[in-house]
Amino acid sequence: MSGPTAPKTKRGAARREALLRAAEAVIGEQGFAASSIADITRRAETALGTFYIYFSSKEEVFRELVLEMGRLTRAGVTEAVQGASNRLEAEKAGLRAFLQFAADRPALYRIVEEARFIDPEVYRAYYDSFGRAYVVQLQRAQAKGEIGPGDPEVRAWALMGMAIKLGERFVLWEDKPDIDHVVEDAFALMRDGLSP
Amino acid sequence: MSGPTAPKTKRGAARREALLRAAEAVIGEQGFAASSIADITRRAETALGTFYIYFSSKEEVFRELVLEMGRLTRAGVTEAVQGASNRLEAEKAGLRAFLQFAADRPALYRIVEEARFIDPEVYRAYYDSFGRAYVVQLQRAQAKGEIGPGDPEVRAWALMGMAIKLGERFVLWEDKPDIDHVVEDAFALMRDGLSP
Repeated sequence: MSGPTAPKTKRGAARREALLRAAEAVIGEQGFAASSIADITRRAETALGTFYIYFSSKEEVFRELVLEMGRLTRAGVTEAVQGASNRLEAEKAGLRAFLQFAADRPALYRIVEEARFIDPEVYRAYYDSFGRAYVVQLQRAQAKGEIGPGDPEVRAWALMGMAIKLGERFVLWEDKPDIDHVVEDAFALMRDGLSP
Repeated sequence: MSGPTAPKTKRGAARREALLRAAEAVIGEQGFAASSIADITRRAETALGTFYIYFSSKEEVFRELVLEMGRLTRAGVTEAVQGASNRLEAEKAGLRAFLQFAADRPALYRIVEEARFIDPEVYRAYYDSFGRAYVVQLQRAQAKGEIGPGDPEVRAWALMGMAIKLGERFVLWEDKPDIDHVVEDAFALMRDGLSP
């Protein structure tokens, strides 16, 4: 927990959570620059001063949302790949979980991308940490012969880029995303490449 | 040419160009919100008022930079793939050209990504138009049997996402990018996938 005062009571925790959800909605819709703390407290139906009990600035609540997205994506992907019997199955399940997350929390998804310009340090830490974990998975899979050889770092970032852009195009930009279709076709590309 | 008055003289065109290059440097370094028109004219070593002869606002010069990046990337990739004898070779040459472009013009590269938040319409038009052209290439290659079957739209966006993230990680974030290495390994993934 960050913020000037981490909430000690249930009521405090609920208020902080309400402010985070309001910030997610407001910043996700309007972007960081156009969102004011007053917009956030109005959305949370609380007094302006309440915000400062839990966060010192708009920057801080923004950073907290990026960190939250990191925890949620990681937990979601980890859970999704739990049952996979090899790396290729895990890639498919992970991609599906990631795209489903974009569908469920489009604002949070957008906020992480905007972090690149608002808080480059937290943005880079987000992807570096995700990338490092991904590299370890690919190295293990390569050692077990579940995937072919190749620089795991280049692969990890290429695969992250694929998932991010697919989420933007086929989830965020679509009224009725067809996640299954995207997963099937993107996974075929991931597994077999473009080769005839 | 846009702007309140499109330059009619050589000197006018040179001044407009100087303002564009200054805007590219300033916005690329500081981000859109933190960049002022005064920062841009200072960098261009011109009077503040001169800006308004060529552009009506910071938003307009920004949009012009995104459109320029679209023209340059397209021209660069088209030229690079000219000599390719099939689609896979073209993919490799196109990826190399794109990463080289990120190395040569990092500010312009960053500006296109920031457009998502500053001017979503021009950002989307940028990728839609690039994506449409990509789809046509993949359809042709599929018809000729140069690549295997698969939804060309999903593939186009997956491949764009790959290139963009690789450019960010291995070009923008590196002091001495090793583009050849990234191209070799990313191309192997593109062609053959992860399969053992």
